[in-house]
Amino acid sequence: MYRTHNCGELRISDTGIKVKLAGWVQRVRKLGGMTFIDLRDRYGVTQLVLDEKAPEQIASTVASLGREFVIQTTGTVIERASKNPKLPTGDVEILLEEIKILNASELPPFTIEDDTDGGDELRMKFRYLDLRRAPLRKALELRHRMAHEVRNYMDSQKFLEIETPYLIKSTPEGARDFVVPSRIHKGEFYALPQSPQTFKQILMVAGYDRYFQIVRCFRDEDLRADRQPEFTQIDCEMSFVEREDILQTFEGLAKHLFKSILGIEFDGAFPRMSYNDAMKYYGCDKPDIRFDMKITDASSLKSKGFQVFDNAEYIGAICAEGCAEYSRKQIDELTEWVKRPQIGAKGLVYIRLSENGIKSSIDKFYSTDELQVFADSAGAKKGDLILILSGTKKLTLSGLSALRLEMGNRLGLRNDKVFRPLWVVDFPLFEYDDETKRYYAMHHPFTSPLPEDMALLESAPGDVRANAYDFVVNGVEIGGGSIRIHNSQIQRTMFKILGFTPEEAERQFGFIINAFRYGAPPHGGIAFGFDRWCAIFGGSDSIRDYIAFPKNNAGKDVMIDSPSIISHEQLNELSLKVIID
Amino acid sequence: MYRTHNCGELRISDTGIKVKLAGWVQRVRKLGGMTFIDLRDRYGVTQLVLDEKAPEQIASTVASLGREFVIQTTGTVIERASKNPKLPTGDVEILLEEIKILNASELPPFTIEDDTDGGDELRMKFRYLDLRRAPLRKALELRHRMAHEVRNYMDSQKFLEIETPYLIKSTPEGARDFVVPSRIHKGEFYALPQSPQTFKQILMVAGYDRYFQIVRCFRDEDLRADRQPEFTQIDCEMSFVEREDILQTFEGLAKHLFKSILGIEFDGAFPRMSYNDAMKYYGCDKPDIRFDMKITDASSLKSKGFQVFDNAEYIGAICAEGCAEYSRKQIDELTEWVKRPQIGAKGLVYIRLSENGIKSSIDKFYSTDELQVFADSAGAKKGDLILILSGTKKLTLSGLSALRLEMGNRLGLRNDKVFRPLWVVDFPLFEYDDETKRYYAMHHPFTSPLPEDMALLESAPGDVRANAYDFVVNGVEIGGGSIRIHNSQIQRTMFKILGFTPEEAERQFGFIINAFRYGAPPHGGIAFGFDRWCAIFGGSDSIRDYIAFPKNNAGKDVMIDSPSIISHEQLNELSLKVIID
Repeated sequence: MYRTHNCGELRISDTGIKVKLAGWVQRVRKLGGMTFIDLRDRYGVTQLVLDEKAPEQIASTVASLGREFVIQTTGTVIERASKNPKLPTGDVEILLEEIKILNASELPPFTIEDDTDGGDELRMKFRYLDLRRAPLRKALELRHRMAHEVRNYMDSQKFLEIETPYLIKSTPEGARDFVVPSRIHKGEFYALPQSPQTFKQILMVAGYDRYFQIVRCFRDEDLRADRQPEFTQIDCEMSFVEREDILQTFEGLAKHLFKSILGIEFDGAFPRMSYNDAMKYYGCDKPDIRFDMKITDASSLKSKGFQVFDNAEYIGAICAEGCAEYSRKQIDELTEWVKRPQIGAKGLVYIRLSENGIKSSIDKFYSTDELQVFADSAGAKKGDLILILSGTKKLTLSGLSALRLEMGNRLGLRNDKVFRPLWVVDFPLFEYDDETKRYYAMHHPFTSPLPEDMALLESAPGDVRANAYDFVVNGVEIGGGSIRIHNSQIQRTMFKILGFTPEEAERQFGFIINAFRYGAPPHGGIAFGFDRWCAIFGGSDSIRDYIAFPKNNAGKDVMIDSPSIISHEQLNELSLKVIID
Repeated sequence: MYRTHNCGELRISDTGIKVKLAGWVQRVRKLGGMTFIDLRDRYGVTQLVLDEKAPEQIASTVASLGREFVIQTTGTVIERASKNPKLPTGDVEILLEEIKILNASELPPFTIEDDTDGGDELRMKFRYLDLRRAPLRKALELRHRMAHEVRNYMDSQKFLEIETPYLIKSTPEGARDFVVPSRIHKGEFYALPQSPQTFKQILMVAGYDRYFQIVRCFRDEDLRADRQPEFTQIDCEMSFVEREDILQTFEGLAKHLFKSILGIEFDGAFPRMSYNDAMKYYGCDKPDIRFDMKITDASSLKSKGFQVFDNAEYIGAICAEGCAEYSRKQIDELTEWVKRPQIGAKGLVYIRLSENGIKSSIDKFYSTDELQVFADSAGAKKGDLILILSGTKKLTLSGLSALRLEMGNRLGLRNDKVFRPLWVVDFPLFEYDDETKRYYAMHHPFTSPLPEDMALLESAPGDVRANAYDFVVNGVEIGGGSIRIHNSQIQRTMFKILGFTPEEAERQFGFIINAFRYGAPPHGGIAFGFDRWCAIFGGSDSIRDYIAFPKNNAGKDVMIDSPSIISHEQLNELSLKVIID
């Protein structure tokens, strides 16, 4: 037996017992004639002490220790003279009686501390060392705990976890698939699933009633920061349900996670907001409602001779509470910020409601009274700063949304220990694309219209709302789903609106359309981005810390050096040739 | 709300309440003026009854129902006149008051019954209909329950479930990899993991101490019956452990599953058997110990002039209890059975210990006394039948092993409700290949030798036993693993014996060898075949019923028609060309 205890469990009540510990050398310190070793494992850190009277053999072994050496020690638990209240084991130390080096370590290329000196690439390459740091360890422990609690809740609700295949079929709709050449069926390919969408609907047709799966998904997209080619989803589907059943069930899941993982309880139902309201008041479909600062329509400022506003499709304002005393420099900074290409605003108009009266960048065009009337309508009071953008409606709203979040950050209104979940509902069913002059499904072609909008499906598709919903926490979309179409007549109409001929629909979605001919129940579902949910709960923006072995922004695993070339024999067996121009 | 209850929960105590049910029409029967409908969902079957006095509109809807129609009904729970004790809901029925067809169904191509009339290919193509049958539904429910209990146990033992990547790197050792072309890194490929072996060892280096994962694995092998290109493994690894710690921990897992899933409790420890004993007494490394019938060495029968035995490298016998009265025809049948190419025996010698004395097929060469002495040594008694094979040791033992299992089947000694788990230990570390004249790792090159055999590693590699173990239930290998090498000197010796130059070792295993330079703890692990474990618990030989969407024996998913060709655009984007001669 290598150890009697781990490095996180000894307490003052263990004083006097003899223990055997094993772990990594975090730090060795000499203090007078004594030597102290911090011994670390997954469970914590325990201090070992080498007495000056210790036998020479032990002293020389201790002298040879380096950082990250793996050792095994025997000793007696004693009370510390100077306790460390920051460590759960900080009341005790182990008086060393035996020590054995189980494995030496070369000097790590960066320090294994909460704040390390290693750069991003280096830490990715030596991921096994980075993973030893407490912040990453805690992130993966959190992830384990979350997955376990998801399963506990889903099981308690009679959901079955059913594994769907990873070697499936490539479908042209949607994002790009990763494909897998078949050796046995030459020239043919499997594809890795972007999500188990069709399989979960098939499982509903098969009568499984309540399905879920924590499952890997794959998308061969051009990578952006914080996008991973493989990511994990909590994928769920239910039969014989309406939207309300789904929202109730998964609000239950979210509450269970908030409570069991974070100890946070919510009174009453999560708020719900229509897509239209979200766009109108927050400029985006995933509002951060930890703070108010809603967008106000400022079209009342038109027709006063200020050309910029008069020519704008849309004018909108937000009111930053208590910011009237922002300096010229601060306002210039904000102006530059909204003019960056990511936002693309032409400029920023402000109205200060300072102690000395109203002052704005458009004083030339508006009287103080006019500005006051507008400020009142925007809910601003003395001490506030109103910020106004104008231009096309789409760009202005997205600019106001970004500016609102930025002001929230500056004003400390986005505390990552505070959680404000929200359902966004009633999304449009279609998006019209001006370029290709056709409708696209906003979610996917199996999404059902809202029952009350069904009559508009053929006459005014653009006005039809989807029976779809997103789950948003603190401005981050954690999940989304919909009630599906189970009526084949509506499905046919849907394909027609999307511009599919019956043959195209059959070719692309044949197997699921066929399945629907044999008694498909009403059903719907949702999928949650598990990596992101973990990151939000951990108070982080980056999903990468919540994935044990992530790829870098170029889709490479630099630790194992993948992707990489394969042998000619492998390519020949697969009947493939690489052609690089 | 589509329903107030499911189809499996109504009982006699619910009599009188009004309920709403939804589900599939299993069967419609007319009996006098009454019509009975069996309504089915995942949870059970409930009988609906249409009274002859029911309104015409309901009667005509009922008349239009076909098998597998999806309906929603409202009615009152009443006590049945003739109860069905086989159904949990068999005491009650629902007096129909409303009925609505939610979805019609075409006539399914086979019956949705426990014993269906559909052939294998047809049921694979319409897997969503096959999955509606109770045996498949129960198989997937069992699988869900097993996965959940695995996680409960592992969590209680402080194991962390950590997801390892699916897009990894191809390694030439071992079975064939499935590869995934990278679009961004032209000409380069990811590979799908055959197992997370290196990642779990990396996680031990990273200090995670106890890791597990229920994880998909991929092998591009030439397919055999009951082999799947993708399969699921319970993958586990622990640090600071010796073999005993691992066997204890995972015996705990097995006992937890036996108890929580099957209600079976085991007294005391599972038996352990050395590889050598397994081969000697059972002729294979995964003995079915539900019955005895051990192999007896029959070399005492040599040198009596019977050439077949005299020239044999090995002679072995089994004793089939109570089979002395086997007819000539039965023995001929067994003889043909062992001569099949799968077994490859030259012939079968028997000795009957019948009421009328000893009779054998080798009476010419042996006296009755000589036969009796041998029979006694083989533990045979009056009424038994001794069966003897001879030839090369390897082939004869494997033949005796197969014959023993066959006799076990014929004698009803292999009850699939009886479970006899077993640890097989002390496997050889290497296999010597006469053709390539080199040693191969029997498990993998990171497997540690037994501590007591370490001294033989360089001098007599063929005699070194591995610190490896297999978990066997009823003759099926469910899991296997080993203590790993964590000492780099031993690892280098290992690679040398396996014929790797240091450069080759670096090229193939570089990233893990590097990781081991930074403080690798002693560690070991095990992996269980989850599909097979489910099948064994379900009392089935076929893993396919325990996988929701399996591939057929040609590696094809005939439901979705995969693999399939992909477009030229996709191939071009991947810089690939298909070359078929």
